[in-house]
Amino acid sequence: MLTVHHLQVSQSERIVWLCEELEISYDLKLHKRDPLLSPQSIKDLHVLGAAPIIQDDGLTLAESAACADWIIHKHGNGRLALPPSHKDYAKYLYWYHFSNGTLQPAVSRMLTIQLAGIKADNDMWKRYVAKLDQYVQHMDDHLSQSENPWLAGDDFTAADIMNVFTLTTMRKFYQLDLSKFKNILAYLQRVSKREAYKRAHEKGDPDLEYCLEGPPPKSFLSSLSKR
Amino acid sequence: MLTVHHLQVSQSERIVWLCEELEISYDLKLHKRDPLLSPQSIKDLHVLGAAPIIQDDGLTLAESAACADWIIHKHGNGRLALPPSHKDYAKYLYWYHFSNGTLQPAVSRMLTIQLAGIKADNDMWKRYVAKLDQYVQHMDDHLSQSENPWLAGDDFTAADIMNVFTLTTMRKFYQLDLSKFKNILAYLQRVSKREAYKRAHEKGDPDLEYCLEGPPPKSFLSSLSKR
Repeated sequence: MLTVHHLQVSQSERIVWLCEELEISYDLKLHKRDPLLSPQSIKDLHVLGAAPIIQDDGLTLAESAACADWIIHKHGNGRLALPPSHKDYAKYLYWYHFSNGTLQPAVSRMLTIQLAGIKADNDMWKRYVAKLDQYVQHMDDHLSQSENPWLAGDDFTAADIMNVFTLTTMRKFYQLDLSKFKNILAYLQRVSKREAYKRAHEKGDPDLEYCLEGPPPKSFLSSLSKR
Repeated sequence: MLTVHHLQVSQSERIVWLCEELEISYDLKLHKRDPLLSPQSIKDLHVLGAAPIIQDDGLTLAESAACADWIIHKHGNGRLALPPSHKDYAKYLYWYHFSNGTLQPAVSRMLTIQLAGIKADNDMWKRYVAKLDQYVQHMDDHLSQSENPWLAGDDFTAADIMNVFTLTTMRKFYQLDLSKFKNILAYLQRVSKREAYKRAHEKGDPDLEYCLEGPPPKSFLSSLSKR
């Protein structure tokens, strides 16, 4: 039996959603942040100390994309990935790797310098916020094309699952405003209508508001500081 | 004909090395930093404005891992990736994605806060430097095991190609000291003996010193500021 360890309000929501899309059977273990960082229960499972972590027949595996590829190819018969023979293989590869190669690091970087006390008048802030804006605009432009209802084209794929976390829940940590990105907002509405997305949310994060609108959702960090 | 655009002293060295390992024919175009960032010639090729960029029969593709997967599966018959049936598939996936999912973002994060003027007495600095140390130690521990001459086990794979940039050339930007990580240093010596690695270096970055020793190599940033 495949076990998925999900740290609530984290990127491991990708793996819960993936399992729901693939309609495979899995055992879901929920972990809560303590109060912001990974709890000991996650650290005890894997030296990285970060979710997602999956367990499968003696294997313990971390890293979002590694877990996704494992589940897709060992449990999903390759569904939600596109094979090299597919006409949209390049699009799939690009957007699949864009998530952790470009978009998520750009948002994390803003969160990092914000937490380190850097203010918006700092030159690095200005440069990095402009870079992030460029990346999001790039995705919005891509989704503006009628042949791209999903990131890899006609087919919903794991490229969508990898990127949506950064466009939604991640904004509870860094308050990215998506209001001007109309194509991304329309895309997130399409995402929100997927039954598997709703099931993943209900199972993994029933207390978390959906983060699908343009203005940033309520900060997770500020909710902690009010305790 | 496959064309590889390589920005010198950058992560696109991965793709040059990959092509040399696969012994495929490709056209190599070299670009120089201007003086630190991507030159206009890279920005003109792809909206991301970052190398690597490959061109292949009408396709223009960016993102290191996307370019690597494309070349492996469209030009290399899947060599240097491990298939789902391989006993070390999980190891391959983990370390392949660890490169851009964990290691490179952790080093980039340090570079970012350094450039933003954060000092080593800042709590965020301390926390992130400890995290980075933990990740590198994790890799060192993995490589200390005799069954792991390479990151995915017995076989040299694209997981090695993805991670080595961060352990070598990236240290010209953030001065990571590897002196205490003896297993990583021994691993880098094995890397340096690969003919394809040497060829890639000669073709892509003939003026760049090899960055294979423990102490950080001479800073690329300080060489700029001395101009």
